[in-house]
Amino acid sequence: MGGGQPVVQNSLTMDEVWELYRPDIEEIESHIRRNLNSEAPLINEIAAHILDGGGKRIRPLLLSLCSRLTGYIPKDDLVLGSLIEFIHTATLLHDDVLDEATLRRGRPTARRIWGNRASILAGDYLYSRAMHHIAAFKNHEVNDAMALACKRLAEGEILQLCANRQPLLPEAEYLRIVEYKTGALLAAACKVGGLMGGVSSLQAEELYRFGLNVGIAFQLADDWLDYTADERNLGKTLGQDLMQGMVTLPLIHVLPRLQADERKSMVAKIERNAIEEGDLLRLTASMHEHGSLGYTRTRSREYIDAALSNLTTFDDSTAKRALIVVADYMVNRDS
Amino acid sequence: MGGGQPVVQNSLTMDEVWELYRPDIEEIESHIRRNLNSEAPLINEIAAHILDGGGKRIRPLLLSLCSRLTGYIPKDDLVLGSLIEFIHTATLLHDDVLDEATLRRGRPTARRIWGNRASILAGDYLYSRAMHHIAAFKNHEVNDAMALACKRLAEGEILQLCANRQPLLPEAEYLRIVEYKTGALLAAACKVGGLMGGVSSLQAEELYRFGLNVGIAFQLADDWLDYTADERNLGKTLGQDLMQGMVTLPLIHVLPRLQADERKSMVAKIERNAIEEGDLLRLTASMHEHGSLGYTRTRSREYIDAALSNLTTFDDSTAKRALIVVADYMVNRDS
Repeated sequence: MGGGQPVVQNSLTMDEVWELYRPDIEEIESHIRRNLNSEAPLINEIAAHILDGGGKRIRPLLLSLCSRLTGYIPKDDLVLGSLIEFIHTATLLHDDVLDEATLRRGRPTARRIWGNRASILAGDYLYSRAMHHIAAFKNHEVNDAMALACKRLAEGEILQLCANRQPLLPEAEYLRIVEYKTGALLAAACKVGGLMGGVSSLQAEELYRFGLNVGIAFQLADDWLDYTADERNLGKTLGQDLMQGMVTLPLIHVLPRLQADERKSMVAKIERNAIEEGDLLRLTASMHEHGSLGYTRTRSREYIDAALSNLTTFDDSTAKRALIVVADYMVNRDS
Repeated sequence: MGGGQPVVQNSLTMDEVWELYRPDIEEIESHIRRNLNSEAPLINEIAAHILDGGGKRIRPLLLSLCSRLTGYIPKDDLVLGSLIEFIHTATLLHDDVLDEATLRRGRPTARRIWGNRASILAGDYLYSRAMHHIAAFKNHEVNDAMALACKRLAEGEILQLCANRQPLLPEAEYLRIVEYKTGALLAAACKVGGLMGGVSSLQAEELYRFGLNVGIAFQLADDWLDYTADERNLGKTLGQDLMQGMVTLPLIHVLPRLQADERKSMVAKIERNAIEEGDLLRLTASMHEHGSLGYTRTRSREYIDAALSNLTTFDDSTAKRALIVVADYMVNRDS
């Protein structure tokens, strides 16, 4: 976004947003700890390990901000925020098993400490713990939004699994995976926040779209980062997505633009999981040459613009300004 | 139960129950197929594989019977039955990954055909698909009962994981694991059935207890079968539970009754996962000598008696008689 694009004049910075909502984030943290009350001590231990892993609580923050767009302070937004973080954490636990990951944010993954079985079950528990607590709010729209998000998350993951090493994945299909895998839970967070704050059905739908657009923009920014990270010396290895067989937007954009023989060779290597350092460098050079990275960045910004336009139905407020800052922050991260 | 113990005169047999409810079971099957409508074809394929694996649909049958205790035919019991089967199937998919199982009911497990990743995700999908559809019924008590069951299932599994190779597990702790792992979903099926049929809160609670008691009885019958199966030449290997590190009631009963040195040696071997054929034979002989198998069988029957007493609040009806037959059948299976 750079400067000036937000649709309302916005003097807040992300640091100021964190500062402004620090008491709320702290209360969310305390709900997270209080709700980790399984009768199985191992579940609490595993969940605490990953929940204390330095996540930024973006989903609870978005939920809470959306709940305050109508101007009054709702009652249950912070509890629901803690529960949406449980669901997010459940996906991380299962993801680490699926990816056989050994590190998350620089710390050993739960599966490395407690094994795959315990990680799968702790994930199952966090999902159902959250859904059970959410049911207690007796709000049908909230139940529906949360259960739909969980369904989409699982579908997105499995669609992605099927798309692994499929370099000729159409862009529209890829965007659907991103929508389900990354957008759905953010969309639910924003919609549920709005519902807690008493927005109209139409506004709840706009908040759903807002979260969905922010989520897609966030993932596309991630795709772009993956192929440009080394240029900014961030200690990240370039092209990790591809090395893991993941097909993302820059690759989808560049492949049809390669010479036929090179394209054929790259496609075959990706399908066989045989991409080497040299291939990666050639592909990245081609991405620069054909504007694939710029294209990805532009698409990401378009989704953020769409997200901001979803907020026009709401009057100016601190919460709305903060939402715009958070949306902007999510695609302008450096890592 | 043998003959005569059912609390009402009951001329039905299990075969007659299946025959009587065949159209309902067929409709449940058609709901199962219709609801397998993920946008990810791989999910439908995996789910169909395991759902077509010859399961008896006991949970949907119990749900449906409980919904008819009040004498009228409810509308949504068969759909809900299909959804409870989705949840049960999700647990089987995850169980097979946890146990690294290669066969289920004589067919290759989903994880063997499609891998662990796809099995975990298909399980996640079936859980959340069911919860999303259940939310659409907009019945808070149903939401609560189903979400609680899912939470208990995960807790029971993880408690069992922690109890693996812990031969000195107290009986009460073991029974809690059984209650969560096996009882909770059957309890939810029966309670939800009752709710659909419009029973009172008190009756819904009795149906919950009925399902819980049937579930515990079922598991204890299974524990007993595992140490006696070979005697009836059923082609089942004796003591499979123990060989997999699972501590069950016959073992919990016999261990304190062994001579101190033998007990110490057995405990150490179980903890080290070093039980051999000879140990198993000695343990089984001791179980016969000390009445541990009879004790397990008696406990199982006590839970069935308790279950039957949970039905006394309902007037005599075909559905009630069928419930009694099903409960009896679940602990008098041969395999």
